[in-house]
Amino acid sequence: MDILRASDIREILKVTQNSDIISLAGGLPAPELFPVEAIADLASEVLRTSGLMALQYSPTEGIPALRAHIAKRMNDVWKTSLASEEILVTTGSQQGVDLVAKLFLNDGDTVLCESPSYLGAIQSFNTFRPNYLEIQTDEAGMVPEALEENLRLHPNAKFIYIVPTFQNPSGRTWTLERRRQLIGIAARYDIVVVEDNPYGELWYDSPPPAAIQALDTTGNVISLGTFSKIFCPGLRLGWVAAQRVWLDKLVVLKQGADLHTSTLDQMITAAYLERYDLDADLEKKRYTYRQRRDAMIEAIGRYMPEAISITRPGGGLFLWVTLPGNADTRALLERSLQRGVAFVPGEAFFPATHKKNSMRLNFSNMPEARITEGIRRLGLALQEMESGAPIAGMEHHDSQ
Amino acid sequence: MDILRASDIREILKVTQNSDIISLAGGLPAPELFPVEAIADLASEVLRTSGLMALQYSPTEGIPALRAHIAKRMNDVWKTSLASEEILVTTGSQQGVDLVAKLFLNDGDTVLCESPSYLGAIQSFNTFRPNYLEIQTDEAGMVPEALEENLRLHPNAKFIYIVPTFQNPSGRTWTLERRRQLIGIAARYDIVVVEDNPYGELWYDSPPPAAIQALDTTGNVISLGTFSKIFCPGLRLGWVAAQRVWLDKLVVLKQGADLHTSTLDQMITAAYLERYDLDADLEKKRYTYRQRRDAMIEAIGRYMPEAISITRPGGGLFLWVTLPGNADTRALLERSLQRGVAFVPGEAFFPATHKKNSMRLNFSNMPEARITEGIRRLGLALQEMESGAPIAGMEHHDSQ
Repeated sequence: MDILRASDIREILKVTQNSDIISLAGGLPAPELFPVEAIADLASEVLRTSGLMALQYSPTEGIPALRAHIAKRMNDVWKTSLASEEILVTTGSQQGVDLVAKLFLNDGDTVLCESPSYLGAIQSFNTFRPNYLEIQTDEAGMVPEALEENLRLHPNAKFIYIVPTFQNPSGRTWTLERRRQLIGIAARYDIVVVEDNPYGELWYDSPPPAAIQALDTTGNVISLGTFSKIFCPGLRLGWVAAQRVWLDKLVVLKQGADLHTSTLDQMITAAYLERYDLDADLEKKRYTYRQRRDAMIEAIGRYMPEAISITRPGGGLFLWVTLPGNADTRALLERSLQRGVAFVPGEAFFPATHKKNSMRLNFSNMPEARITEGIRRLGLALQEMESGAPIAGMEHHDSQ
Repeated sequence: MDILRASDIREILKVTQNSDIISLAGGLPAPELFPVEAIADLASEVLRTSGLMALQYSPTEGIPALRAHIAKRMNDVWKTSLASEEILVTTGSQQGVDLVAKLFLNDGDTVLCESPSYLGAIQSFNTFRPNYLEIQTDEAGMVPEALEENLRLHPNAKFIYIVPTFQNPSGRTWTLERRRQLIGIAARYDIVVVEDNPYGELWYDSPPPAAIQALDTTGNVISLGTFSKIFCPGLRLGWVAAQRVWLDKLVVLKQGADLHTSTLDQMITAAYLERYDLDADLEKKRYTYRQRRDAMIEAIGRYMPEAISITRPGGGLFLWVTLPGNADTRALLERSLQRGVAFVPGEAFFPATHKKNSMRLNFSNMPEARITEGIRRLGLALQEMESGAPIAGMEHHDSQ
C-alpha cells in the first residue's frame, strides 16, 4: 500500500512528547477531569463480583447493559428513538468510522465530505483509495447547492461523511436549517449520511441543534458516538447507532476486526453510567473547556495579526485559523516549533483540495496561562515568517 | 457488500446461549483459570497510582512497558530475536489478522492458506474478496509440493496465512521439517508468511517445534500473538511481531482502525507480567486442558462409530472430526442440537473447497463429565443420521 504514510499529527505529537514544547497539536481531553477514583472503585468491584465474565469473551455487539445505556442516553440527549438492538459498541468511534468504510467502500468509490474534514476518517477511508468530493462548507455547514450538484454528477457516491457539531478540525456547527436541507437532499438521492458526533455534548454557550439522526425519517443516517470526550478515551469505547439493516452487517465486520471490545472496559463504563452522574461530569468539563476556549480567542486577538481569520467554536476541542492568501502553515510549523509551540497544519484535512493556509489549534488540554503563552509564541513565529527572517537564525537568536 | 453473512459460529453460539445445550462449538478458555483476584488488585492499583495515564489516549504502537514484555516473552519462549520496536500491540490477535489483510490485500488478490483454515481470518480477508488457494495439508503441515505448485501458478499471491501450532480448527501442528521447507519455499518465491500462533504455549504432551519466525532469516515472517489463551480474552490484547518495514505501515493502519488499544487493559497486563508468574498459570491451564482433551478422545472412542477419523491434538483447544464419504455435518448439526449438543460444521473452514464432512469440537470450556456426555449425545445423533430416522420424530421421542 503505497498510499500509507505516518500522519502529520502523529509525527508532530512525537516531536512534542517529552519536551517543553507547548502543544496545541493534539486533541487530548483534560485528564484532571477524569473520574479516576470512581473508576478505580468500579474496576475493583466489577472484577471481584463478576470477574469471570469481565475477563471472558463477550458478544460482538457489546454487552447488553452498555448497549441499553447508550440507547437511552442517545434518546435522552439527542431525541433519537433508538432501541438497544440498534447500538453496536465499538473500540472507540474511530472503529465506527473504519467499519462504515469497510461496509460501503470498494476501491475507488466516491465519498462526499466537508471541507475541511476529520483527518482520522480520511485515514480510515484511504485504505480503499476513494475519490473524495470535498463539498464547499461555510460557517453554517455544507452548502446545499454544492452538495446537490456533486450528487447529480456522481450518482454512485457511497455516503456523505460529516461531523456537523463542533467539528474536528474547524470547530464549526451546522445550523438546523442546513441539517434539514441535508436530510432532504440525501433522501432525494437515496444516499447514506454518516453523522460523526464525538463533541456534541461539549457545548459552552448553548446546546447545539438537533442531531441529524433525530431529524431523519428515512433510516439512512448512521451515527457514531464515543465516550472518549464525555468520559475518558483510554478505555476506547464508542458506538454506532443505525437501523438493523446496517447494524447487522457492521456486527459481522466488527467480528472480523477485533471480535469484540474489551469486556472489562464495557462493564466498568456500564456500571459508571448506572451509578454515577455523567451530566454532572459534563458540567465540569464545559466549565473548564469554556475558560480555555475563551483564553485562546482572547490571546489570538492580542498576539496574532488582524489579517488572519478564526472560527469561534461553540463547543468541542478545536479552533481553526486561516491565514491570508498563499501562506503555507507547514512552513509556519517549522518556525513555531523553534519558538516552542506546535499545531497541526491544515493541509491534511482537505483530502481533495489540499489547501495550505490553515491550521488546527487545540484548547482542551492545558491551563489558560499556557494556552496564552502558546498563542504568543505562535504570533511571534507568524511575524517572523511574514518578515521572511531566516529560520536557523531565529532559533539561535531566541536561545540566547 | 453482499458477501457478508453472519458466520456459522456466531449463529450457533447464539442458539446455545442460555440453554442447556452442551456446546462444543465455541472456543472459550476456562474462566475458572483466570487470575481474577490478582487482576482486581492490579486494576485498582494502576488506576489509583496512574489513573490519569491509564484513562488517557496512548501511543498507537502500544504502551512501552507492554511492548517490552511481549518482545522479551517472545524471545524467551520462541527464541525469536525481536526488539520492542518490532511489536505492535493489537486489540486481540483478530485485529492483527485484519491489519495484515488491509496491508497486503486489494480486491481480488490471492491468499494461500491451509486446508482447513482459521475461520476468523477468512472472515477478515473476505472484506477484500480474495482468491483463496487452499493448499493441501496433512498431519505434518502444508504439503510442500502443493504449496510450491500453487506459488508457481500464482506468482502474484500476497501472503501465506497459517496457524502452524495446534491449529484452529484442526488441532494439527506442523513438523519442524515442514516449517523449514516452508521458509525455503517462501524465500524462493519472495512471499510473506503470516504465522498466527495463539495456542503455541498450550501444549499438553511436549513443547511444539520452533516458531517459524524464529527459524526465518529473511524477515518476511509476520507473527501474530495474543494474551487471550495464556491470560484472559476479555481484555482484548494481542500483538503483531514483524520487521520495521512492515510494522511501521501496520501502525498507520491501526491508527485508522481504532487509534490504540485500551490503555487500562494494557497497563493491567504489563503490571501482571511484571509481578506475577504467567508460566505458573500456564502449568495449570495445561493440566486442566490435558484432562479435558483426554476425556474427549476417550469418549469419542467409546461413543462414536469407528468409521470416523479424528485428530489427536498435542495442544490448543480443538479436535477435528472427519466423517466418511459424503456425510454433511450441517445435517448432523440439526439432529445434534435436538439431542442437546452443538459443534461447528467444518464447511466454513474450507474457503475454496467447502468440504462438508468434518466438524470442530472444543474441549477447553467444560469439565470432563460434560464433555463425555456431549460426545455421547453426538454419537447418538450420528447413529440417527446414519439410520436415516426422521428428525422431528427424534425430537419428540427424545423429549418423552
